[in-house]
Amino acid sequence: MKLLRYGPRGGEQPGVLDGDGRIRSLAGIVADIDGALLARLPDALAGVDITTLPLVADGTRLAEPVAGVGKFLCIGLNYSDHAAEAGMAVPTEPIIFMKATSSIIGPDDDVLLPPQSQKSDWEVELGVVIGREARYISREAALDHVAGLVLVNDLSEREYQLERGGQWDKGKGCDTFGPFGPWLVTLDEVADINALDLWLDLNGTRVQTGNTDKLIFDVPTIVSYVSQFMSLQPGDIISTGTPPGVGMGMKPPRFLAPGDVMELGITGLGTQRQAVKRWPG
Amino acid sequence: MKLLRYGPRGGEQPGVLDGDGRIRSLAGIVADIDGALLARLPDALAGVDITTLPLVADGTRLAEPVAGVGKFLCIGLNYSDHAAEAGMAVPTEPIIFMKATSSIIGPDDDVLLPPQSQKSDWEVELGVVIGREARYISREAALDHVAGLVLVNDLSEREYQLERGGQWDKGKGCDTFGPFGPWLVTLDEVADINALDLWLDLNGTRVQTGNTDKLIFDVPTIVSYVSQFMSLQPGDIISTGTPPGVGMGMKPPRFLAPGDVMELGITGLGTQRQAVKRWPG
Repeated sequence: MKLLRYGPRGGEQPGVLDGDGRIRSLAGIVADIDGALLARLPDALAGVDITTLPLVADGTRLAEPVAGVGKFLCIGLNYSDHAAEAGMAVPTEPIIFMKATSSIIGPDDDVLLPPQSQKSDWEVELGVVIGREARYISREAALDHVAGLVLVNDLSEREYQLERGGQWDKGKGCDTFGPFGPWLVTLDEVADINALDLWLDLNGTRVQTGNTDKLIFDVPTIVSYVSQFMSLQPGDIISTGTPPGVGMGMKPPRFLAPGDVMELGITGLGTQRQAVKRWPG
Repeated sequence: MKLLRYGPRGGEQPGVLDGDGRIRSLAGIVADIDGALLARLPDALAGVDITTLPLVADGTRLAEPVAGVGKFLCIGLNYSDHAAEAGMAVPTEPIIFMKATSSIIGPDDDVLLPPQSQKSDWEVELGVVIGREARYISREAALDHVAGLVLVNDLSEREYQLERGGQWDKGKGCDTFGPFGPWLVTLDEVADINALDLWLDLNGTRVQTGNTDKLIFDVPTIVSYVSQFMSLQPGDIISTGTPPGVGMGMKPPRFLAPGDVMELGITGLGTQRQAVKRWPG
């Protein structure tokens, strides 16, 4: 299933994509697409005939597909070729940092650069959405705790991340720096989690190209690993790192500016498109 | 006002401390003590006569005094003498990191050490609770966005924090590592935010002693500073750093072990008491 949320900010409704790629409303059937619902899947939607649900008008805004995300975790430097372009050593175990949940926006919302910032950058990533609480779990059990996958753009202000004290969270959680979606794709619809193409275009030019077969630490390893340091709750997201091609790695570096447009996607998980503006937009 | 929450985990009720130090129930008057309520203070409780509210039975569990915390932010190395004991340079600007919100427990709940961990440590801290959204605000306006203050124990697993890749979040968000409370004390009840004593006793021996007059970056500076990197939302908490006396700074280091008891407090903000056990307790 491809679960989603649609409608204006603050007035989002739950929905689902039908077999023809049209949005159908789940309003009245479930309260929202959130951790509480994910913990009850697939039972919560058993018996729902998607083809009979009301169609949502074309052009309706898509929101982030999970409401009330408790933790937005990220894994750093998880593609060896991206570590090289960042000038950093390949990690011997996963690096964990966090994005502020207040950074979350819908997949096609505008990205607003902080007023004085100079070094904002893009990062297409595979995101893992937790469906069942995970605490000190094994790699073998990990996927049983995953509800599905999402496309993430892990926007990063490199000066804030790397030059302002060394804790990366400072450059990862700016408002609008956490688009995810358009859909939460349940695991049963993913053919091979280790063979997904990722790409990102800046103003129509391909800048990032990757495949999850190049992940240093794969999804089950990551979920198990993180659960050794903190419990994972339904609705939490782990973004699993970015392949090469970020602006920081270009010579000279190329950072985001007002007027830029990012378009990105992952096989089977849909696409995003964000216009870049300077705050307040 | 001293706002609080009481009752078993998952069944907490809102409450308030009366002038005689007794707990009164706010059930039926407000839904919960959370960001939505804090954003409506003081109006939301105007006209409530605390002395007429039902008394809560002695011995009832106290929970964390704010539900649904969106971000649990921390400032690192914000007392110069603590930076020295940690062997780190005094920062030239605030260091920001995050605690997982899943680490939150009540002020007197048990602290559970992760199964294999060896270097868990205590940190008494002053916590600031946001009452109104703050985004790119000035130092002068900062306190207008603060609902009140809380006592925090910023428990930290030093190996995970410092020896496992360098991003501190890994050692700050273990389950049970985020006790705060007992009360959210509204700012109007705080005589001088820059003259609050902090202390922490381990097994009855004073190990941490500090005063907020030794903060490198004071509360208005911190709130304004953080708001330049991410918006602060009602119910978010910023813990402002710990004074000297943590276990990591002792010679030899002294880390937490099952059977230890931590007791801590801040002038006017109440006290906490946590028994230390090994997970699962």
